[in-house]
Amino acid sequence: MRRVVVVGLGPAGLWSAISARVADPSAEVVVISDEKYLTYSRCGLPFVIGGEIGGFDELIITSIDKLKSLRIQVSLESKVVDVSGDEVIYEREGEVHRIKFSSLVIATGSKPFIPPIPGIDVSGVYSLKTIDDGLMISEAVRRARKALVIGAGAIGLEVAEALVRRGLEVVVAEIMPRVLPTILDGDMAKILGEAIRSSGVQLMLNSKVEEILGDSKVKCALVGGVEVPCDIVIVATGVRPNIELARKIGVSIGVAGGIETDEFMRTSIEGVYAAGDCAETKHLVTGKPFTPLLGSVAYRQGKVAGANASGASLRFHGSLGSTVLKVFGCEVGSTGLTLEQAKIEGIRVVVGKVKWLTKAEYYPGAREITVKLVFNADDGKLIGGQIVGGEAVGQRVNLLAAAISCGMDAESLASIDTCYSPPVADAIEPICRAAEIALKKLRK
Amino acid sequence: MRRVVVVGLGPAGLWSAISARVADPSAEVVVISDEKYLTYSRCGLPFVIGGEIGGFDELIITSIDKLKSLRIQVSLESKVVDVSGDEVIYEREGEVHRIKFSSLVIATGSKPFIPPIPGIDVSGVYSLKTIDDGLMISEAVRRARKALVIGAGAIGLEVAEALVRRGLEVVVAEIMPRVLPTILDGDMAKILGEAIRSSGVQLMLNSKVEEILGDSKVKCALVGGVEVPCDIVIVATGVRPNIELARKIGVSIGVAGGIETDEFMRTSIEGVYAAGDCAETKHLVTGKPFTPLLGSVAYRQGKVAGANASGASLRFHGSLGSTVLKVFGCEVGSTGLTLEQAKIEGIRVVVGKVKWLTKAEYYPGAREITVKLVFNADDGKLIGGQIVGGEAVGQRVNLLAAAISCGMDAESLASIDTCYSPPVADAIEPICRAAEIALKKLRK
Repeated sequence: MRRVVVVGLGPAGLWSAISARVADPSAEVVVISDEKYLTYSRCGLPFVIGGEIGGFDELIITSIDKLKSLRIQVSLESKVVDVSGDEVIYEREGEVHRIKFSSLVIATGSKPFIPPIPGIDVSGVYSLKTIDDGLMISEAVRRARKALVIGAGAIGLEVAEALVRRGLEVVVAEIMPRVLPTILDGDMAKILGEAIRSSGVQLMLNSKVEEILGDSKVKCALVGGVEVPCDIVIVATGVRPNIELARKIGVSIGVAGGIETDEFMRTSIEGVYAAGDCAETKHLVTGKPFTPLLGSVAYRQGKVAGANASGASLRFHGSLGSTVLKVFGCEVGSTGLTLEQAKIEGIRVVVGKVKWLTKAEYYPGAREITVKLVFNADDGKLIGGQIVGGEAVGQRVNLLAAAISCGMDAESLASIDTCYSPPVADAIEPICRAAEIALKKLRK
Repeated sequence: MRRVVVVGLGPAGLWSAISARVADPSAEVVVISDEKYLTYSRCGLPFVIGGEIGGFDELIITSIDKLKSLRIQVSLESKVVDVSGDEVIYEREGEVHRIKFSSLVIATGSKPFIPPIPGIDVSGVYSLKTIDDGLMISEAVRRARKALVIGAGAIGLEVAEALVRRGLEVVVAEIMPRVLPTILDGDMAKILGEAIRSSGVQLMLNSKVEEILGDSKVKCALVGGVEVPCDIVIVATGVRPNIELARKIGVSIGVAGGIETDEFMRTSIEGVYAAGDCAETKHLVTGKPFTPLLGSVAYRQGKVAGANASGASLRFHGSLGSTVLKVFGCEVGSTGLTLEQAKIEGIRVVVGKVKWLTKAEYYPGAREITVKLVFNADDGKLIGGQIVGGEAVGQRVNLLAAAISCGMDAESLASIDTCYSPPVADAIEPICRAAEIALKKLRK
């Protein structure tokens, strides 16, 4: 009988287990996780801290009963220490256990990247990756007045907003010259930056945190030579694939720092699959390996890896790193390459950019939205898009992701048969307008 | 020197004139319109009646100054009575004028279809197509308590909601067995029907209005044998292409009842173009001519017709009839073929349908959304989609319209690299889930 062992119970682990079960109803499916909670939404953590969601337990998206009904065995608080041949060796409550597998799925996720800043181990400095982190931060916030958030990526900004909701004075320090530096160009980031500043957050761009100061507890930080008083620091400088186990086993690690996988989510070792934040995948524009580090991708990869671990042969074609977030009243989304990234890739580009309204101009509640599309100048095809402001940004990003995947060019994007009704959409969809602007440049 | 004459100043007329101007800066551009207002949003009329928008003048989307700055001459309240050779003959204030043209754009729009119901000419019975209609209805509503709306299409439902907002008791009578019969299948229409009923509107389906009764003023109507008291009746039984002038000129009228056009928006007579509600266009799934009767299409066709009238050779590829509306708190959208329409076309289909949430389950404000996708069973390609409920329905319809245009199949639709963030979107996009369900059926 087949036994599929999954290491990790994040979205990739959970969905690996579920789809392993579905693909082979007779297989034994075992999940080993070092956390004490069942699968939960890490993306939801900032919203519990901010109070939009009542408690961390609301983020847990499965239950023992549900897993039992799927005949998925779970061993929590269990650390896998090694794999020897077809055996996984793990520790739980001080005891060593061994379990044989027919196929193995590595879904060990990612770990916060902690930059080597002097004083970063002072009490009062946190990162946010787990429910336990969230509980600690939420508790610390009760006694805090001033917060420093290091990093203006998605998590940094979401936490900054949560802290503002909790009544703290917040400074966000970002070493790059813009917010969301990996998904936005400078011009688009500027729009969001203004929304952040007008919410009362002090945004320090181009600003390196040189030192965190404090004896028993953090007192202030030195940011670009400026002393920033703070009684809590959140380190949100990104995450890195957790490849500790993968290295131990000897599966190949790729150039992007994750586990090398093919489109079947197979690693370099037969019978061993990987899914989620720990795995590399193909970028659908560049064709190069990268680590999207996104829950949405983890879920989709898990479904493929788990099914294939049970004998199926599904494919995961790759990702565009499609991202959306809503912070300080502003929706922001991005997919594919930014202009800057396209230039680094050596792609000749044409840009179509437009500021528009989300509804008919005369309809109450129409909001400003800025759309920036990046096209390959050689074939006119869409290779990336960024959207800031307005509403329904996530669904617009999905449209752009679909358009990139199926090779739509500026002309076909400009002529989509979009729908219109004053309370819902303007007669001119801003995506089509931006494509039209690019089309004119392409035709020159 | 080229002179482009445009007949009609709806969105098709306006955009014909603007793009004729842009395509040939030296051309003379003249618009002749029988209305007394400049271009306004007809789609906005119900929202003025309902009070969301302050006044009908807010719907006017251009100005004499703007048209002057574009060097577009406009003759309002002018009725074109004939075209003789290269001369348009029109009447204004009882006087007959003649103007020669190099090219002519017919943008005469549509007219309400008034069914031959006995008593339909009684006082208190209105249709809603123009600002003047809106003014009359808005005035009549002040003295009314009970309204009957004939027809549960988009306009009928929007007007019904407006009348509810104005405090009237409203009955909607629809001859077909469902609301929005041309864009929704029965199962999807049912969801909307429930929302309408729970808003206090009495919805009478399968119900023919047999007679409208009243002497000097409407008193009641006989609907499917039932007497429905009402002091105002709105006839919203659809519109038909206004082809009066086209017939007079002798351009070919197509099987769908509109002016025959090719992809350059040319009619059967050289130098004569047509755009907007009066014109037929190609359905992008069936390849057959149809009349979308949509403002969004009118705008796009106008741009093509006007530019080509000025010597360009742009193409309008066709339409999917993409529609969205928001009524009684429910967003509803549709593009391409419904299941029923696909069957009539003789297409073998597979359906993927799912009820999902618009945000992460635990995030406040997550709303139910139902997505129904129709695929061609022979090649797996998407041919239609309907969405009811939730939010961002319009943008989801646009994604489906893009997907149909570029021939996406269930597999590629299921694997779009969609974005995710708890306040904005669920990790699983309902469109992808519906495609996945269809894919499983297709693979069987």
